[in-house]
Amino acid sequence: MFSQVENLPAFAGLTADGAAFAARHIGPTPAEQAAMLQTVGASSLDELTDQTLPSAIRVGKPLGLGAGWTETDVLARLRELAGQNRVLTSLIGQGYYGTVLPAVIGRNILENPAWYTAYTPYQPEISQGRLEALLNFQTMVTELTGLDIANASLLDEATAAAEAMALAKRVAKSTSNTFFVDADCHPQTIAVLKTRAEPMGFAVQVGNPATELNAADVFGALLQYPGSSGQITDPRAVVDALHGAGGIAVMAADLLALTMLAAPGELGADIAIGSTQRFGVPMGFGGPHAAYMAVRDAYKRSMPGRLVGVSVDSEGRPAYRLALQTREQHIRREKATSNICTAQVLLAIIAGMYAVYHGPQGLLAIARRVHGLTATLAAGLRELGVVVETTAFFDTLTVDAGSAAPDLLARACGKGINLRNAGEGRIGISLDETSSVRTVLDVWSVFCDDQDRIGHMALRLAQAPATVPDALVRQTAFMQQAVFGSCRSETDMLRYLRRLADKDLALDRTMIPLGSCTMKLNATVEMLPITWPGFCDLHPFAPADQAQGYHTLFKDLEHWLCAISGYDAVSFQPNSGAQGEYAGLLAIRAYHQARGEGGRNVCLIPASAHGTNPASAQMAGMRVVVVKCDAEGNIDLADMQDKVAAHAADLSAVMITYPSTHGVFEENMRAICDLVHDAGGQVYVDGANMNAQVGLARPADYGGDVSHFNLHKTFCIPHGGGGPGMGPIGVRAHLAPFLPGNPADPDAMAVSAAQFGSASILPISWAYIRLMGDEGLKRATQVAILNANYIVSRLSAAYPVLYRGAKGRVAHECILDLRPIKESAGITVDDMAKRLVDYGFHAPTVSFPVAGTFMIEPTESEGKAELDRFCDAMLAIRAEVQAVEDGQVTAEQSVLRHAPHTGTALTTEEWAHPYTRRQACFPPGVNPATKYWPNVARIDNVYGDRNLVCSCPDIAEWME
Amino acid sequence: MFSQVENLPAFAGLTADGAAFAARHIGPTPAEQAAMLQTVGASSLDELTDQTLPSAIRVGKPLGLGAGWTETDVLARLRELAGQNRVLTSLIGQGYYGTVLPAVIGRNILENPAWYTAYTPYQPEISQGRLEALLNFQTMVTELTGLDIANASLLDEATAAAEAMALAKRVAKSTSNTFFVDADCHPQTIAVLKTRAEPMGFAVQVGNPATELNAADVFGALLQYPGSSGQITDPRAVVDALHGAGGIAVMAADLLALTMLAAPGELGADIAIGSTQRFGVPMGFGGPHAAYMAVRDAYKRSMPGRLVGVSVDSEGRPAYRLALQTREQHIRREKATSNICTAQVLLAIIAGMYAVYHGPQGLLAIARRVHGLTATLAAGLRELGVVVETTAFFDTLTVDAGSAAPDLLARACGKGINLRNAGEGRIGISLDETSSVRTVLDVWSVFCDDQDRIGHMALRLAQAPATVPDALVRQTAFMQQAVFGSCRSETDMLRYLRRLADKDLALDRTMIPLGSCTMKLNATVEMLPITWPGFCDLHPFAPADQAQGYHTLFKDLEHWLCAISGYDAVSFQPNSGAQGEYAGLLAIRAYHQARGEGGRNVCLIPASAHGTNPASAQMAGMRVVVVKCDAEGNIDLADMQDKVAAHAADLSAVMITYPSTHGVFEENMRAICDLVHDAGGQVYVDGANMNAQVGLARPADYGGDVSHFNLHKTFCIPHGGGGPGMGPIGVRAHLAPFLPGNPADPDAMAVSAAQFGSASILPISWAYIRLMGDEGLKRATQVAILNANYIVSRLSAAYPVLYRGAKGRVAHECILDLRPIKESAGITVDDMAKRLVDYGFHAPTVSFPVAGTFMIEPTESEGKAELDRFCDAMLAIRAEVQAVEDGQVTAEQSVLRHAPHTGTALTTEEWAHPYTRRQACFPPGVNPATKYWPNVARIDNVYGDRNLVCSCPDIAEWME
Repeated sequence: MFSQVENLPAFAGLTADGAAFAARHIGPTPAEQAAMLQTVGASSLDELTDQTLPSAIRVGKPLGLGAGWTETDVLARLRELAGQNRVLTSLIGQGYYGTVLPAVIGRNILENPAWYTAYTPYQPEISQGRLEALLNFQTMVTELTGLDIANASLLDEATAAAEAMALAKRVAKSTSNTFFVDADCHPQTIAVLKTRAEPMGFAVQVGNPATELNAADVFGALLQYPGSSGQITDPRAVVDALHGAGGIAVMAADLLALTMLAAPGELGADIAIGSTQRFGVPMGFGGPHAAYMAVRDAYKRSMPGRLVGVSVDSEGRPAYRLALQTREQHIRREKATSNICTAQVLLAIIAGMYAVYHGPQGLLAIARRVHGLTATLAAGLRELGVVVETTAFFDTLTVDAGSAAPDLLARACGKGINLRNAGEGRIGISLDETSSVRTVLDVWSVFCDDQDRIGHMALRLAQAPATVPDALVRQTAFMQQAVFGSCRSETDMLRYLRRLADKDLALDRTMIPLGSCTMKLNATVEMLPITWPGFCDLHPFAPADQAQGYHTLFKDLEHWLCAISGYDAVSFQPNSGAQGEYAGLLAIRAYHQARGEGGRNVCLIPASAHGTNPASAQMAGMRVVVVKCDAEGNIDLADMQDKVAAHAADLSAVMITYPSTHGVFEENMRAICDLVHDAGGQVYVDGANMNAQVGLARPADYGGDVSHFNLHKTFCIPHGGGGPGMGPIGVRAHLAPFLPGNPADPDAMAVSAAQFGSASILPISWAYIRLMGDEGLKRATQVAILNANYIVSRLSAAYPVLYRGAKGRVAHECILDLRPIKESAGITVDDMAKRLVDYGFHAPTVSFPVAGTFMIEPTESEGKAELDRFCDAMLAIRAEVQAVEDGQVTAEQSVLRHAPHTGTALTTEEWAHPYTRRQACFPPGVNPATKYWPNVARIDNVYGDRNLVCSCPDIAEWME
Repeated sequence: MFSQVENLPAFAGLTADGAAFAARHIGPTPAEQAAMLQTVGASSLDELTDQTLPSAIRVGKPLGLGAGWTETDVLARLRELAGQNRVLTSLIGQGYYGTVLPAVIGRNILENPAWYTAYTPYQPEISQGRLEALLNFQTMVTELTGLDIANASLLDEATAAAEAMALAKRVAKSTSNTFFVDADCHPQTIAVLKTRAEPMGFAVQVGNPATELNAADVFGALLQYPGSSGQITDPRAVVDALHGAGGIAVMAADLLALTMLAAPGELGADIAIGSTQRFGVPMGFGGPHAAYMAVRDAYKRSMPGRLVGVSVDSEGRPAYRLALQTREQHIRREKATSNICTAQVLLAIIAGMYAVYHGPQGLLAIARRVHGLTATLAAGLRELGVVVETTAFFDTLTVDAGSAAPDLLARACGKGINLRNAGEGRIGISLDETSSVRTVLDVWSVFCDDQDRIGHMALRLAQAPATVPDALVRQTAFMQQAVFGSCRSETDMLRYLRRLADKDLALDRTMIPLGSCTMKLNATVEMLPITWPGFCDLHPFAPADQAQGYHTLFKDLEHWLCAISGYDAVSFQPNSGAQGEYAGLLAIRAYHQARGEGGRNVCLIPASAHGTNPASAQMAGMRVVVVKCDAEGNIDLADMQDKVAAHAADLSAVMITYPSTHGVFEENMRAICDLVHDAGGQVYVDGANMNAQVGLARPADYGGDVSHFNLHKTFCIPHGGGGPGMGPIGVRAHLAPFLPGNPADPDAMAVSAAQFGSASILPISWAYIRLMGDEGLKRATQVAILNANYIVSRLSAAYPVLYRGAKGRVAHECILDLRPIKESAGITVDDMAKRLVDYGFHAPTVSFPVAGTFMIEPTESEGKAELDRFCDAMLAIRAEVQAVEDGQVTAEQSVLRHAPHTGTALTTEEWAHPYTRRQACFPPGVNPATKYWPNVARIDNVYGDRNLVCSCPDIAEWME
């Protein structure tokens, strides 16, 4: 009764304002919007919208999400949902373990906008803090794995294994097309490997390496160490055999176990991969976590994923930046080592800091305690007559309980413990950092009712001997670099984190006007729930009845994303946009196969596409055919018609980003989609630019069959300095049967290790949509378009705007052409980008999608004052360029070429520049009291790639 | 059974380390401790302890707190306790209201170490961020109250009323000793006023001002606006009468109501006070919250408490600093305006930021909604036949329920709602920002079972007319300053908070070596619970059965503090150290009175005492007699004997800080205590220096009868930039009957508005003690002593150390004598303090307790590296002084005199100094990449006091 009454319009004035959050999320106030509309020459947001989007694609009615909720109501509902998840002690293992996130790291990284709102460190001069943190991560990995070089994270262990398989194929001497997989790998790893292998034309052989592997028949093999069952096996014979046959040995290794076990590198492995989840990152019902990959030096240029390296800056300082970017998809497209773009930066940083905080002794102490408890557990189980299969183990046992298994699993649940149902009467038990003597006692009591007996047994068994095989006991020291001994106290850790954070520019200090990357507000209220135990502490393979809150949340979010996009079903499995593309193309592929048209394998991709598109298509077994763009940046309709006609028989899909990567709503979108459909192809609409259309247009309405949603762009998951991302895909009903399955089944089609991907960050997008409601979401899109057009209005006289729509409007972003400046003054786009740092800004996207340009997306979250600050800076810089054009100063001498300016440079006794110190560091609009000081000068990328150093240098090297 | 087994020594190696947290809390590693012991010339911590503490006072055995717990276990237990508190919707009002802390403010201030670990802004050059935030607070208060000047917070509304009474007495022309208090004031305010008045010799008359106040008989009156009952009364006639008789009109006003009501200043009030809790600060079962006080310009120099003002720096910039410090106790001692030292800075900043985020329109919208709901509620209650007494109201109603009251209160509880039991069958109902239409419906349903009737009634009554009397409707605009319109979006708010935080130096960037202020680690795990709803959202007057978790926590903490100190009972009521002193002296006073020795009124205080001691004694109605110190800084025993003898008959108490404010454990402590006791006096041991003795000595053992514990020093409550503090007192059994009572009883002896003071921050100290255990606490004290003696060893050749103990050791702090440098080089202690900023440090305590000195307390939380960085800086500065002594440069030209150096100064074209730019800003040990840049140069204090500006200037003024 009351719920009907209280929402009646009569109470409107007494009800908290449903638009309150939207007004906080959207930067410009209504008055500012009015002023900006005047500048751009539109009478209203609706008129501007009409001038921007083709009317043919506009949606005519609200999405049906209802009014926005208040922050208080959203938090209350999320608390309810978190409460509907039941957090048990999960001893399931299988790659996911309880862990303790040190509070100082949780609060000062995971809950700190200075870290979580940062962008990928493509601009290294303002990213030294997170780059150093990632170098720590890489060093931790190389030290523990005993290999030469490690990247700065992959999406999860299963996809890391798949990347390792592809890498093995690239570098193996063997010409075989078969990859061998230890049957004692985690089931989800096997599922992802099989999924990935098939379109690439590899066979996967799963079996016992000791008995079923013929090295001559394979190009490589993956061994799990310790095995998924817990068993530790010496891999050396297998590795030697592989090497003898020109194959590659890949080991999936547990980093905590490696503190006690001989390192993969020492055992001969060529590649090691694994999860770093248990280094302080909550299980989160599956993610996000950072996986690692380490390789021998010989394979470094073939390694996928981001890599942080040391170089020097123009003043001779050591400085960090991303190394060997030429391997990556944004450069090499379908020839890239992988389609990987997003990494798991925030989680990798947490894992690395966990290692910094504990140091080698601390990690070893944790490992020894976990192992000691497991040894005691095993001894007791044996004494109780339980059949313990595992003979040599670190933290995991498998017992054969026969027909009693179901009862025992249920009994354990009753005691608040999840054990692993390993199938066929076998039960897995994995201890972890959070386990205690009580945990051991409780597990015993699952198998034995007699508490007294257990008590007495405990006293006898305490400190059972270790069971690591002698030959595999680690003999080498690790993590002896200074950083791993520098933060034993919380005070030291706190200050280290602050020092690093202060080096970086994130959204908490300035707009980050990156084209296509949608650096919008990550509202605090959206972020609060992700560190609640009810969302953090669930094991991804916990029984479904323990995750009711999550399932309700997934259902809501699927429903809303469908309403927003027009699709019929959503899979949350993909952990990044690129992975979403891949999953979407797999669905298309499977659809064609199911219809007996498996021969369709051509993927049409416009020249303007993101590099991930062709890279994903290649991974999905498709042949990429490029479609031209016309002078306005639109898809060349004639060429499209030609290509479709030419490939009518084998056309699988077209991938189109809409609005285009040129920031324009093309008028032909519907026509193109019809063309492709008529030829039997499917349309993949890349969701990177969803921020320009939510509430205004829906991909499924104008022809899309499948799209991914970059939840970390449009739907407010923060970029985390380069991850986590989330790339769920929406599909029309005919593709729904081909969405990814449950990776717990090794025969399922799976693109990630966990069924719902990075489940624990989904509350962010849930909250955003619920807070904004129909009106808020639509308004946000309209203001995003207004902000972009406002920048065009203010800057187009100074910088040519490359592409516009039919009515002269850009969508949510714009491309400024800086090539004329290169021509007239010799000032490069890099000079411009670095000079913006002196003005306190993160540079826009540089040279994408067009070399020599800036692409700028202000998003709806920036207010007029910040937009004006940016435009003023761009105009002031244009004046600095003019001085070069006018011959007042050469490009080499100019303030632009020497940017960014550090404090060190400014305090030299002799000042050798034609500009003043103040012009260098306090240009117009920069408040000296709040200036951001870059802590390195311009970084030499070439030097770093030529002299590749990707782990923490010794102190001595720094001194040189 | 299991709990006995799992803790057995057999499992030692398998149990998480109980000393783990202590190792994180204590800065130096064991290896560093060994190296430092070598430097100080002691073979072990125990030997150093023996050399430092007189053996006569040492405790011989562990405190009995047991082993330290892990962070995980402590959090789990605190979650349990929070869960045992039941959070109902509290409509009790009475000065405490539900409120919504905007998430962006919660995360980025209340949960951000950059804000909560900061110190009181005595060093303004590194405190511009929080000073600006406090100026916003002051401006918000003056704007809403319509008065001229406001201070930067008092401890709570009740003590603010008491301070106002004392101020009224100081400035009133009337010679009366009676203060009139509106009977419709909050009961706790009346209790605190009566308690405060009695020792000061004031009479308090409580009554109806309209009928019982004879202005000629009083020096002032306090009116509540709106009244505690909710009733709004026009105060103008009373105010006029008071003024006519030379009296002072004080109004206790609700800031949210003032957005709709005529301001106290407009109504003629001389002083306004009140709580700012409902501006975003959780109720927290009583605190902490910031109270405000605003006065007419004429009384500004008589106003108690901290005051932020605008001045200029040496480069002509506007700059903030504390104004009119000469009013304060650290200067004026027993002649001070008040004993107030600690303020509620962190909470005042939150309240100020709440106003910045909402702006005037936002606050008014909230007020109108609350009022509209209340009007609807009243109309409905009347229709239901309920006797609503309140005729004109803002948010609170009082109904006369007669004999049905107990049943109705219980019925409300059953529906999850606390109403106020206002006594004699009357029930109070206060709505607030968190109230909704549903709240109104629920309250109606407490009084009426017929849901249908309520539903239909609701529709008719929605939007009942407002009930503010026409004559009291606010006509004036407020908060028109730019800052209150600058942060409408969360992005803007986030960046504003970051900009301010970056201006300040707090513990997250550097040690803050303040003598006596114990700036130690505020561990994250200790801070996490204070923002949990189970601790935050309880009303202080909620029924006791809803606060079981809190009561268990209080009991534990009392037990532990007694074990640590040797006392028998603890009161948590005092909200600051000074308030603890005052409460302790009141207990002593009451004890003497109870024994028929009420004439004892002399309080002996050594010359070295903190200024709060004499100020508190004066407030407690005692006569201060100063006892001399000898050349070694110890209490002059002979003078003490003389003074005790001279005042044997009227000796009430002695107040001694131990170890002394000179940083030394005096050998005579026991003898002095005996002397005082023999003369019938009581010993107050000031707990400011407890950090030097926890686990080593206990005040009650060596003679203390009562002490306060600065929980914000020794027990890890962060300083919050100048509050909150907590000063609970421990007493021996004979004083226990005289501890403060429950302020809900207007006749109780009470020093604070809430019975348990700032209850919601007590989990911090609970966690610290539980984490450290016996061993950890003792070790922390020993390392604190080691760190201080290490600094002495490294610096005493360069700077004379003023005082040492019998064996040449200092306790936990040391005093460096800078007077010789003044003599030899003309370099002042201020020059030294400001030059430390260039080196990236917060200065030590300046000129306390001895003018011309630094007092340094490193605490146990600083590691050797940071101590060395500090000592290196001090030695480098000594070399800079030497250059002046050697005549290489004059003091006026020296790098010291011009410190601190800003970026602006360094980038001038002409460099007029004899030192280089690099010497100025990058002296030895300063890493250019991580340098802290002060954002103002040296601030002119005199200018600011002469040209007092204590609210946000207009933009125009800033431009000048």
